[in-house]
Amino acid sequence: MESGEKLSPVTLAYETYGTLNAEKSNAILIAHAFSGDAHVSGEGGWWNGIVGGGKGIDTDKYFVICSNVVGGCQGSIGPSSTNPKTGKPYGTDFPIVTIGDMVNAQRHLIDHLGIERLLSIVGGSMGGMQVLQWMAAYQNRIRSAIPIATTLKHTPQQIAFNEVGRQAIMADPDWQNGNYYDSAGPAKGLAIARMIGHITYMSDTSMAEKFGRRFRADCAPKFGADFEVEGYLHHRGDSFVKRFDANSYLYITKAIDYFNLLNGHSLGSIFSGLKAKVLVIAFKSDWLYPASQSQEIVKACKLSGVDASYCEINATYGHDSFLVETEQEGRLISSFLRSLSNGGS
Amino acid sequence: MESGEKLSPVTLAYETYGTLNAEKSNAILIAHAFSGDAHVSGEGGWWNGIVGGGKGIDTDKYFVICSNVVGGCQGSIGPSSTNPKTGKPYGTDFPIVTIGDMVNAQRHLIDHLGIERLLSIVGGSMGGMQVLQWMAAYQNRIRSAIPIATTLKHTPQQIAFNEVGRQAIMADPDWQNGNYYDSAGPAKGLAIARMIGHITYMSDTSMAEKFGRRFRADCAPKFGADFEVEGYLHHRGDSFVKRFDANSYLYITKAIDYFNLLNGHSLGSIFSGLKAKVLVIAFKSDWLYPASQSQEIVKACKLSGVDASYCEINATYGHDSFLVETEQEGRLISSFLRSLSNGGS
Repeated sequence: MESGEKLSPVTLAYETYGTLNAEKSNAILIAHAFSGDAHVSGEGGWWNGIVGGGKGIDTDKYFVICSNVVGGCQGSIGPSSTNPKTGKPYGTDFPIVTIGDMVNAQRHLIDHLGIERLLSIVGGSMGGMQVLQWMAAYQNRIRSAIPIATTLKHTPQQIAFNEVGRQAIMADPDWQNGNYYDSAGPAKGLAIARMIGHITYMSDTSMAEKFGRRFRADCAPKFGADFEVEGYLHHRGDSFVKRFDANSYLYITKAIDYFNLLNGHSLGSIFSGLKAKVLVIAFKSDWLYPASQSQEIVKACKLSGVDASYCEINATYGHDSFLVETEQEGRLISSFLRSLSNGGS
Repeated sequence: MESGEKLSPVTLAYETYGTLNAEKSNAILIAHAFSGDAHVSGEGGWWNGIVGGGKGIDTDKYFVICSNVVGGCQGSIGPSSTNPKTGKPYGTDFPIVTIGDMVNAQRHLIDHLGIERLLSIVGGSMGGMQVLQWMAAYQNRIRSAIPIATTLKHTPQQIAFNEVGRQAIMADPDWQNGNYYDSAGPAKGLAIARMIGHITYMSDTSMAEKFGRRFRADCAPKFGADFEVEGYLHHRGDSFVKRFDANSYLYITKAIDYFNLLNGHSLGSIFSGLKAKVLVIAFKSDWLYPASQSQEIVKACKLSGVDASYCEINATYGHDSFLVETEQEGRLISSFLRSLSNGGS
């Protein structure tokens, strides 16, 4: 790991879609966001609007790979996995994970699949950080990159939102310093953390369109959720608890907060030497990873002479736009990918 | 109360500064924001940059009144007060409070002080909501009004932030359904709620200027606060717990969330008939109560033929600007107040 700690053996859960061609030149790796998993396409797939036959990332043409990140809880090794030394779940004995560690594991995966060079690496939010890490660390392994709704470094406000979520989890007595795997776990704290997250993923506009100030039909008790927006947040919090591990929440948000490609480097140096083509996508209403941060990525590319395009989509759904407003996004991605095939490499 | 419930007797804590003139025409009522109190000026006063001798609201000229809101915990009646029926603190038996209830209590206070008409009513944030409520409900009792960094109605995003804070308090087992007054109380939950609040009071820019991505000097344990911004939020959360009651947090945030002057009314009707002069102040970097919401207040005034001016201050401190960047704000207020004296009424 980047921390110097060792982690072994490492299990990585991944899915693939489509067929790898004989030249092994049509592989696209998709990196998931904070709470995502390897299941990117098909029923229940987190990016099914973009990935599939005839879609923006066309699985009839491309061989698509998506793996769950190290530190996660959807099949890859993480704090809920068994520590071979103790026979019990790692809990907080799991080593600190970085975006670099996640990407190093992915690089091992594409080695394992025999792929010398990815046609593209694509991802939004934390997935976008992994894309940027590939652009900085494995320049010869990618022909193109599509970082979406992301940033070169986490800002104090972004760190602050994550920190409040972590505090909510760790304040829950059922967290028990991370050793909760034989009991219910910190459900209340994790739900609150997710509620905070959801506010930052949406926009005031999308919330106003979706809920306005409407009250719920069933009469809520005092300090119950009497506005629809409150009921929605509770619902999202509760359903998250069923599918996500609280310790993974801690590890992955810390990985995001530690992310800083500029650490000691100038803007013009981080992508220097990169031959890959880059498409940067941002969304106007995204206030968690505002368009200005995507423009900074473009600036870093341009300062290094990297071939980069920038598209800002006028969607209202806030940061979640990259997941839910997929029509324009899909068209941009498919025509970018097509241009790669046409131009050769 | 606006809910129909009765509350009696009602204690209101207030402070006054300066001298009421013989005509009783120089009285200015200041309404505090969410966590404020009656102590607006002097050492430790929450708006000492604005209120005092020779300052923006000059206590050498004006008679300044500030009272703690109903539902609060700084001397006025609230959930931590003793319920005369039981001899114990009200807790959640305290009736639901609205901004209208707060203003009605203030109106009783100025009756008690023998003041027929306030020279001005001034306040920011929740204080601004009280100003707007005065403008709608007690038009003959005010000669002018200064709503600052506020809104005609709480939006779903604003409600959502408050709701997460409430959930953090109520998820703390030490909350005990609000009956915690013989024990320590929900300190962890209340601190988390305050941390969320603080993020929304600042701006990404002010956080970046204040902390950047600097790490703290003392090495934090895993998942401790290793960034300075985290340490700051913890500090603000912990110091808030020492001075604020968790149940008051619930009641006052609900009062804010219920606030909606537009409820069933058109924008042009809510201030119709108002003869008072109005100065609306907003801050460019305030994303919790964005300038667009202040512009909506101006629009409501103009549609009713109310004499309203609008000033947007280019401060970087986010919503907290109204409390901390007081130089321009003070000048705007003092010249507005001077114009009232010159023009008569």
